Amino acid sequence: MSFTRVARRFHSSSIPQMPPINKPSPGIYDIVVIGGGSGGLGAARRSAQYGAKAAIIEAQPKLGGTCVNVGCVPKKIMWHAADLAHHVNHSRYYELAQDVSESYTPHKPRFAWSDFKQKRDAYIHRLNGIYDRNVEKDGVEYHHGWGAINNHQGTSVSVKKDDGSSYEIPTKNVVIAVGGHPRIPYEIPGAHLGITSDGFFELEHQPRRVAVVGAGYIAVELAGVLNSLGSETSLLIRQDKVLRNFDSIIQDTVTSESQRQGINLVKHTNVKSIEKTSSGLLVHTDSSTNPLEVDCLLWAVGREPETDKAGAKVAGAQTDSKNNILVNKYQSVQLDENTYSKNVFALGDVQGKAELTPVALAAGRRLGNRLYGPAELKDDHLNYENIPSVIFSHPPAGSVGLSEDDARKQFGDSVKVYTSKFTSMYYSMFPQEEKEPSAFKLIVVGKEEKVVGLHLVGQGSDEMLQGFAVAIKMGATKKDFDNTVAIHPTAAEEVPISFMMQSRRPLRL
Amino acid sequence: MSFTRVARRFHSSSIPQMPPINKPSPGIYDIVVIGGGSGGLGAARRSAQYGAKAAIIEAQPKLGGTCVNVGCVPKKIMWHAADLAHHVNHSRYYELAQDVSESYTPHKPRFAWSDFKQKRDAYIHRLNGIYDRNVEKDGVEYHHGWGAINNHQGTSVSVKKDDGSSYEIPTKNVVIAVGGHPRIPYEIPGAHLGITSDGFFELEHQPRRVAVVGAGYIAVELAGVLNSLGSETSLLIRQDKVLRNFDSIIQDTVTSESQRQGINLVKHTNVKSIEKTSSGLLVHTDSSTNPLEVDCLLWAVGREPETDKAGAKVAGAQTDSKNNILVNKYQSVQLDENTYSKNVFALGDVQGKAELTPVALAAGRRLGNRLYGPAELKDDHLNYENIPSVIFSHPPAGSVGLSEDDARKQFGDSVKVYTSKFTSMYYSMFPQEEKEPSAFKLIVVGKEEKVVGLHLVGQGSDEMLQGFAVAIKMGATKKDFDNTVAIHPTAAEEVPISFMMQSRRPLRL
Repeated sequence: MSFTRVARRFHSSSIPQMPPINKPSPGIYDIVVIGGGSGGLGAARRSAQYGAKAAIIEAQPKLGGTCVNVGCVPKKIMWHAADLAHHVNHSRYYELAQDVSESYTPHKPRFAWSDFKQKRDAYIHRLNGIYDRNVEKDGVEYHHGWGAINNHQGTSVSVKKDDGSSYEIPTKNVVIAVGGHPRIPYEIPGAHLGITSDGFFELEHQPRRVAVVGAGYIAVELAGVLNSLGSETSLLIRQDKVLRNFDSIIQDTVTSESQRQGINLVKHTNVKSIEKTSSGLLVHTDSSTNPLEVDCLLWAVGREPETDKAGAKVAGAQTDSKNNILVNKYQSVQLDENTYSKNVFALGDVQGKAELTPVALAAGRRLGNRLYGPAELKDDHLNYENIPSVIFSHPPAGSVGLSEDDARKQFGDSVKVYTSKFTSMYYSMFPQEEKEPSAFKLIVVGKEEKVVGLHLVGQGSDEMLQGFAVAIKMGATKKDFDNTVAIHPTAAEEVPISFMMQSRRPLRL
Repeated sequence: MSFTRVARRFHSSSIPQMPPINKPSPGIYDIVVIGGGSGGLGAARRSAQYGAKAAIIEAQPKLGGTCVNVGCVPKKIMWHAADLAHHVNHSRYYELAQDVSESYTPHKPRFAWSDFKQKRDAYIHRLNGIYDRNVEKDGVEYHHGWGAINNHQGTSVSVKKDDGSSYEIPTKNVVIAVGGHPRIPYEIPGAHLGITSDGFFELEHQPRRVAVVGAGYIAVELAGVLNSLGSETSLLIRQDKVLRNFDSIIQDTVTSESQRQGINLVKHTNVKSIEKTSSGLLVHTDSSTNPLEVDCLLWAVGREPETDKAGAKVAGAQTDSKNNILVNKYQSVQLDENTYSKNVFALGDVQGKAELTPVALAAGRRLGNRLYGPAELKDDHLNYENIPSVIFSHPPAGSVGLSEDDARKQFGDSVKVYTSKFTSMYYSMFPQEEKEPSAFKLIVVGKEEKVVGLHLVGQGSDEMLQGFAVAIKMGATKKDFDNTVAIHPTAAEEVPISFMMQSRRPLRL
């Protein structure tokens, strides 16, 4: 395979011109991918690695898409900063003083937001460069511009440049991987005065007072970062809990812990209007007559797919009520009730299912495997069941499989639930009121107690989940969990131990 | 079961007298456990929970054994302190300054060892109390004194009190769970001037200069803690790597990283003698003519079982060359070549196999299940294969299954090894020379690529391993790892992603 690739690059006419090129190379392409994010890169690079003539079209002046530029990566780095601020605060309980003038000093970290943003941007820029080199190395043509399917058969893609000029690329297969963008509720007066997660990553200065609107994981993560780094943070939610798409143990724990950590959680609230004044923004809501004054309002009220920009409907792609493109398990777009395209595919956030980088990446790579890989991969596709994911809250939370509610809907009375709530040994040196909770829930079904869901919240959950997800994907029963010797002292051992013993935990407080 | 227990406690003559009692209650005991550590407590409590008349005999004035008093628990707390000191140091790279007089200050944490020791001791004391209440709650008689089997049949156990008096307890079954103690190499002149891990936990003041002798996990953990908290730390090892019982990827990574972090690693060295002077201890070695001067020398050169004190040989128990008691899979002690006792058992460190708290605990509980549990548990015993364990080094390391060397010895050419070395995103903000490494190794066998070993070193490995261990215990293949969607951005995702892609890691630096 790598020999094929090398041979192609040195002997064919399709030697890639890098960085972004401005015209197609001669001949019909095997595959054109619209969107240079995780999913698009996975599909284009994997196809090219098998020798396919592949192009990727990206409208932004850099590769990587949401994840690298305005999503997972800068978010995780900000979470690390916030987590580190917590640790510096914690150091007092471990009798770690700052050695200043030989005297103990208070532990209030001050975060140099602007300096840090420069550092974070530089890192992202380095990652963009790595992506450029990766597509070059794999022989993927990288076109800069707005890509859109421009015929019903899906055999032609137009690339519109920033200067208004455009050209067309003929192709056998096309992949729509254009992702989405954060929604701004323009129906609310003054909505444009707010920013979104995209704008969060552009903030040059730390807002002193901020309101985050939304209850999903993006709202929770960004509010958590801002609060941990010292902004006065309000989180405005429509109901009484955050993370309502997750299991109740995660909802309950993260909701109460966010409040304990000082986030001003404003429940049962809708924003009515936003008003700019000389001293900031006034956020008028339906739950109080007093508007909330902040320096920054951040909308985290959902994301919308970029379906229309990519010409999905020109190619006859069907969409759901939220404009997500409908696909089958091979990522083929749906054309009518029972027909799926043979040459037009969609993956990643634009298809609205499991909007996660590794899902898009895996779906893209598997599509490449199926189209251009060896015989044994001719049925390759991503299984969307039991996909684990983590919320970078404080503490972090992780989830794989069904929530308790969903399990009961699906399996009724054969569902059994094991719950463990404890305080990690790390907090043994803390005063009671400063201890963070851990809470785990295992959901099993039937006499064999097959695991259908695992929900973790607490320190270390982020790194803990992956391995359990492998076991659950393999069809683990509770007995498999119990039969594995615990690793002591860890938080992860609470999964098998506590679920085995139920309230007989001799080793922790 | 709980009804039986309650009934017994209120209506029988065996109402336990707590705290430690000084004479046996009337009648023959079902089970007497010598040793109040993890294994002994597991066996005694589980037996009592099923209604057995059970006693536990502990020579120390507190329950919990090595783990709680001078092992895992205080060790992990010290590791947290050390880890936190690292984090405080790291905060500069995240532009987190200490808010002192509005100016940035250096980030050198100073550790108040003595104050912290008091806090740590108080926590351990609280745990001891919980153990006391747990045995009381379960109706286990708790005797204080040196317990020893005193007849060949193993049907009588003597309890020798601190005042020299003693009494005997008649019993149907007896469990030897007396653990071990750290070895001091008294053959070396001046060896008594050193302390062991037991003494480490008694240190009231932080030694300014310390030499740790040994290359095992206890040596590595304690040297790591001392170095991280600011002691000038030398680690004296006989060969050129630490952790020689672990896979080479752990040996290599922890050895080089310990040096990078400032531990003075003195290789190919044996201690010849130790001499006390007015300014400290002079450690004479065979690798240098200049002795090393330190304030504290810590022996971490292995542990020895307490076999003889428990009267194991009186009951005819066979031992190996290191005096560990030989047992079969039901923890029955070996009497001669093919005979195992029906009523004398040994478990935990005294049998020398997998010397880990959760192993002892599980073996004890399963013995209780087998002897006194319901019919379906009449064959219950602990499977000693694929036991995961973690080393609390900096960064931590974890291991389950076979090392590469052992796998090749056992499976020859059908072994395949997947290795991933990377730098966790946390370190993306660090200068190159301050970044800690991560290194993972997956060892598979045969065409189906069955996983026989997984070895992790790097930030988060401690919490990461448990779940993978469940999957491996279930018989996971590499395909099971690959088929589980990664959780991004985590270090744990490197297990499936990197092992799937091998050197195609687009998402990390």
